[in-house]
Amino acid sequence: MVVVMRTGAAPEEIDAVVARVESAGGSAFVSRGVQRTIVGLVGDIAAFQTLNLRAMPGVGDVVRVSKPYKLVSREHHPEATTIQVGGVPIGPDTFTLIAGPCAVETADQTLESARMAQQAGATLLRGGAFKPRTSPYAFQGLGEKGLRILADVREETGMPIVTEIVDAHDVDLVAEYADMLQVGTRNMQNFALLQAVGSAGKPVMIKRGMTATYEEWLMAAEYVAQRGNLDIVLCERGIRTFETATRNTLDIAAVPMVHALSHLPVVVDPSHSGGRRDLVVPLTRAAIGAGADAVIVDVHPDPTAALCDGPQALYGEELDQLAAACRDLPPIVGRRLTTSG
Amino acid sequence: MVVVMRTGAAPEEIDAVVARVESAGGSAFVSRGVQRTIVGLVGDIAAFQTLNLRAMPGVGDVVRVSKPYKLVSREHHPEATTIQVGGVPIGPDTFTLIAGPCAVETADQTLESARMAQQAGATLLRGGAFKPRTSPYAFQGLGEKGLRILADVREETGMPIVTEIVDAHDVDLVAEYADMLQVGTRNMQNFALLQAVGSAGKPVMIKRGMTATYEEWLMAAEYVAQRGNLDIVLCERGIRTFETATRNTLDIAAVPMVHALSHLPVVVDPSHSGGRRDLVVPLTRAAIGAGADAVIVDVHPDPTAALCDGPQALYGEELDQLAAACRDLPPIVGRRLTTSG
Amino acid sequence: MVVVMRTGAAPEEIDAVVARVESAGGSAFVSRGVQRTIVGLVGDIAAFQTLNLRAMPGVGDVVRVSKPYKLVSREHHPEATTIQVGGVPIGPDTFTLIAGPCAVETADQTLESARMAQQAGATLLRGGAFKPRTSPYAFQGLGEKGLRILADVREETGMPIVTEIVDAHDVDLVAEYADMLQVGTRNMQNFALLQAVGSAGKPVMIKRGMTATYEEWLMAAEYVAQRGNLDIVLCERGIRTFETATRNTLDIAAVPMVHALSHLPVVVDPSHSGGRRDLVVPLTRAAIGAGADAVIVDVHPDPTAALCDGPQALYGEELDQLAAACRDLPPIVGRRLTTSG
Amino acid sequence: MVVVMRTGAAPEEIDAVVARVESAGGSAFVSRGVQRTIVGLVGDIAAFQTLNLRAMPGVGDVVRVSKPYKLVSREHHPEATTIQVGGVPIGPDTFTLIAGPCAVETADQTLESARMAQQAGATLLRGGAFKPRTSPYAFQGLGEKGLRILADVREETGMPIVTEIVDAHDVDLVAEYADMLQVGTRNMQNFALLQAVGSAGKPVMIKRGMTATYEEWLMAAEYVAQRGNLDIVLCERGIRTFETATRNTLDIAAVPMVHALSHLPVVVDPSHSGGRRDLVVPLTRAAIGAGADAVIVDVHPDPTAALCDGPQALYGEELDQLAAACRDLPPIVGRRLTTSG
Repeated sequence: MVVVMRTGAAPEEIDAVVARVESAGGSAFVSRGVQRTIVGLVGDIAAFQTLNLRAMPGVGDVVRVSKPYKLVSREHHPEATTIQVGGVPIGPDTFTLIAGPCAVETADQTLESARMAQQAGATLLRGGAFKPRTSPYAFQGLGEKGLRILADVREETGMPIVTEIVDAHDVDLVAEYADMLQVGTRNMQNFALLQAVGSAGKPVMIKRGMTATYEEWLMAAEYVAQRGNLDIVLCERGIRTFETATRNTLDIAAVPMVHALSHLPVVVDPSHSGGRRDLVVPLTRAAIGAGADAVIVDVHPDPTAALCDGPQALYGEELDQLAAACRDLPPIVGRRLTTSG
Repeated sequence: MVVVMRTGAAPEEIDAVVARVESAGGSAFVSRGVQRTIVGLVGDIAAFQTLNLRAMPGVGDVVRVSKPYKLVSREHHPEATTIQVGGVPIGPDTFTLIAGPCAVETADQTLESARMAQQAGATLLRGGAFKPRTSPYAFQGLGEKGLRILADVREETGMPIVTEIVDAHDVDLVAEYADMLQVGTRNMQNFALLQAVGSAGKPVMIKRGMTATYEEWLMAAEYVAQRGNLDIVLCERGIRTFETATRNTLDIAAVPMVHALSHLPVVVDPSHSGGRRDLVVPLTRAAIGAGADAVIVDVHPDPTAALCDGPQALYGEELDQLAAACRDLPPIVGRRLTTSG
Repeated sequence: MVVVMRTGAAPEEIDAVVARVESAGGSAFVSRGVQRTIVGLVGDIAAFQTLNLRAMPGVGDVVRVSKPYKLVSREHHPEATTIQVGGVPIGPDTFTLIAGPCAVETADQTLESARMAQQAGATLLRGGAFKPRTSPYAFQGLGEKGLRILADVREETGMPIVTEIVDAHDVDLVAEYADMLQVGTRNMQNFALLQAVGSAGKPVMIKRGMTATYEEWLMAAEYVAQRGNLDIVLCERGIRTFETATRNTLDIAAVPMVHALSHLPVVVDPSHSGGRRDLVVPLTRAAIGAGADAVIVDVHPDPTAALCDGPQALYGEELDQLAAACRDLPPIVGRRLTTSG
Repeated sequence: MVVVMRTGAAPEEIDAVVARVESAGGSAFVSRGVQRTIVGLVGDIAAFQTLNLRAMPGVGDVVRVSKPYKLVSREHHPEATTIQVGGVPIGPDTFTLIAGPCAVETADQTLESARMAQQAGATLLRGGAFKPRTSPYAFQGLGEKGLRILADVREETGMPIVTEIVDAHDVDLVAEYADMLQVGTRNMQNFALLQAVGSAGKPVMIKRGMTATYEEWLMAAEYVAQRGNLDIVLCERGIRTFETATRNTLDIAAVPMVHALSHLPVVVDPSHSGGRRDLVVPLTRAAIGAGADAVIVDVHPDPTAALCDGPQALYGEELDQLAAACRDLPPIVGRRLTTSG
């Protein structure tokens, strides 16, 4: 960390900063400039953060120069990690298609969606049984009944399941059925939930909060990792900006940026970020180009009848385009499409 | 709702929209324009939302023209509501100062903070026992021990307590001690938590999500209200924008805007929004000017030693300025400062 | 347009809206709902906009349902347009690489950059002679001397020139040298400049304002088009969001979205959006995947000595990766790399 | 400035940074930490910025710790400045009401607006003769005819004039009539215009760009100041955020923040920021509470007939509320309402 003193800070104020740092076992290097003095700190950053240096007299700013996350950081773990989800890899050598219905509605709709997903090249099945909804008047999901449908479809198709968990106290229930637990965008800073999934013994997908910085997102992953679970994938699903023509703004640079900051795989959600069916294929192509390890796509046998996010679910001809993109593009960027067993 | 057809939509496509609306018991009025046709819908909006009209062929857009929340809406409840928190009112005739330490650290620090708060004119005590923290390595609060300290200080000072709840399963515990439950900014869309506090039988303060629109914020309140609890106050605490010189951007227009949309009281948090001690008094004055029903302010007997958000906690001379603002400004805008007992 | 009356609007208020619309030669269709009444307007939208309907008593909202731009709209011009820049096409069948130095510094540096650009597959040369800089203390460009250098390098290499214009009164001067005039992000709503370049008889590239919506961007293009110049390309260069780890957030969905809204070509700037050299190749691949008609990339023979934006300029091995991306990816998405004469 | 080396940077890389800084006449202090090394720079910051340190091998980040603006900085000019506009002060001891029509439409409308403004307590008249409009199809202002109307109304009422300038080449014309030149939000980074108004010999009001940081805004003022003109006032008029219920989000904390960073007066525009008549009075009260030196308000004798921004113009009863706010609130915050000669 670097402490930037105010212009005109008194020598005693500078000395007090140095003394406080040293009292915490750190070293402080003072550089006196013409306009202002800066103090560089060396030692245990976590300890420094409790010193409240910013509140000391004469201090103008405190600039952190190292990362606040450790376990998920690339710095301490240079090799990119491959996560196994029910035997299906997500990692640097492959490109994995995760697809399925936004919400599990019926056994038929879920099985049909899974078949569509497989035809497009998917090896993992997504589907929501517990849905976080902005409105208390909207469909909230089938709950455990939905989980049983997902398990039956896995049986039928061989596709491992990715499903969302919205309440820390459902972890045991959901983990019993799911192959990967998904933490949704609205829960990215629900720390009780993060800690619970960290202890569940299943891989975890953490969707980026709609307004989370890379650092906050990686800190959320650090909460999971701290519980001993490093089987984490990070999912970019669009951030909130001033542009409202699309549902959210897909931050495509998050893919190479997070790969530079962390060893964890990065997944892109082209369905929820755009919120429009006609964007799913172009954004999938963009995601592969940017180096994504996987995409997660909404499909539905009858989007006009979907109970959740119908306008963005793929079907028909667009599925063929999705299949083509997943088949043709990964080899150009040095990956192969994950195929099942 | 209004359905806007695409330019060149076929007559059959328009007829299909009308038929689907009528099948749901609604009426549809078609206005054929030179460039495009619009269809106005009359009837049960909630039913229309499940029709997935946006996904029908020929549909360009669906524009909602009524509010998705009901119980918290001003439209159905024109009188501004006054909430009682342990006998202290928050409502249109008064201005209430809520103050206390960001985090409860020790009994002494909490009592001393409460005394400071009272001297500045506060009648409600804030203080966190459970802290949601971005970093898993940061101080997470004293938990139940903190709640007991708060209860002791209430005993001593007569100030009812406002405290945050971060996990739905702590509701019974926290409600046993607290006079008002606070849902924090990171949990504004933690729907399990909203439903739990809605059933707890205590007033609830809902902080605006860092990136929540007014509508989403009011929908969060609707979740609480749906459980039969209308003792809700809404707290503006700054939104996330591109400007990083302040911690968040206080959206001061939220005060008159939410008052226009809802009958619930609006509180402003000048401490967390700015994140700087020197902004607290100017932002408090601005809040009173804008018509806020209360402000909630961090104070600490020794900010440089605070375990949480020290740089924004008031003490000394600034407390006097806060006291002056709370005494002198409310009468100019037709309110009186709430006084205890 | 649709006028949404307030709940409880008086019949006379509704009649007044209808009367005002009819007085402007339009037709108004009234749909009376249970909660509120909506009035659909048919006729000349531009005329309606001067009626100030939103300020009439009883009016809650006015929702525009058609686009405010015409000449650049896809609706009135379904075929995608190909622009010729000194004989080099930018359009739906091709993918064009535009590259060169951010700023023209010397004849040698410019020629060397152009040679590097050509080796990577570029057919158009970018280079700034007039630089808009946030700080008055930063390098502002060589001016006309820079334009002459660009012209010499065009002579030498055969690459037509794209260069920025920052002042309406330099249009004649810059148009004398340039093959395409670039309007920068900070000038996207400098309407005097837009009108001037609209009359200059040269193709125009309009960079999206850092905070401009698609609609505002297309309105800027409409200003140029109104002067009779439809040789316009639109350049997505990143928008300003809360995420500061990258210089700006590349809005990759802008590519398919603007293609849906307009017949004009869309270019992506992977250098300025990310502001980091290591993002240029991944973002270029993403842009091609998303369907961009061109990318515009900074290159520099010695980035550490560049007077402007050195940290994002490509050289060495990254140029080879850029060349590979521009060669291998376009065919997968149905395009061919533009090659010079 | 502080250079943060990457983890594992080689000693030669650190030495190279030091050598480059010293070659530019600066001093470099190296602090070797456990994880990483930082280099503090002392000397001429402007010179360091041309060194392109960020592009050097081994460099992770370069953190600027001093302000890039000088002339407008509070650091070098601790006393708050009072600007005189045709004899009317804007500064720390007073509160000034600037009011008038958004656009000058006719002599009668302008005079009537000025009379309304005076009754509310205004001492400066605003009014636009040149209007920057997002749409080329919208009313663009009366031009010089509008300026003549403003001059006549000044003659009649004694109110000095504030009017916008949108093209650098109109400076002489507008300066002939106006008492203060206004640079609009869309032109805040039109550097040619900033330099032109800097040389015009009249006070300048710089509206904050819709998406400008405090620093960029102050850099725009620095452009004007560099031409020898320090008679500058800064106008906060709302920034663009994700919240679309209001036209823009008034950043009320900008008032105390910019006062802390700069010695220049700060004005608030409660009309354009909210875009709604019912927000003008609450936001004016908030602005006075926050410490604004002035507000600039739209008034119009017949808002429903206004050619520009009618929905936000005040009239009737709201004018009385505005007058009351401007009369009663400034004394509470240690100011007096400016009264005309």
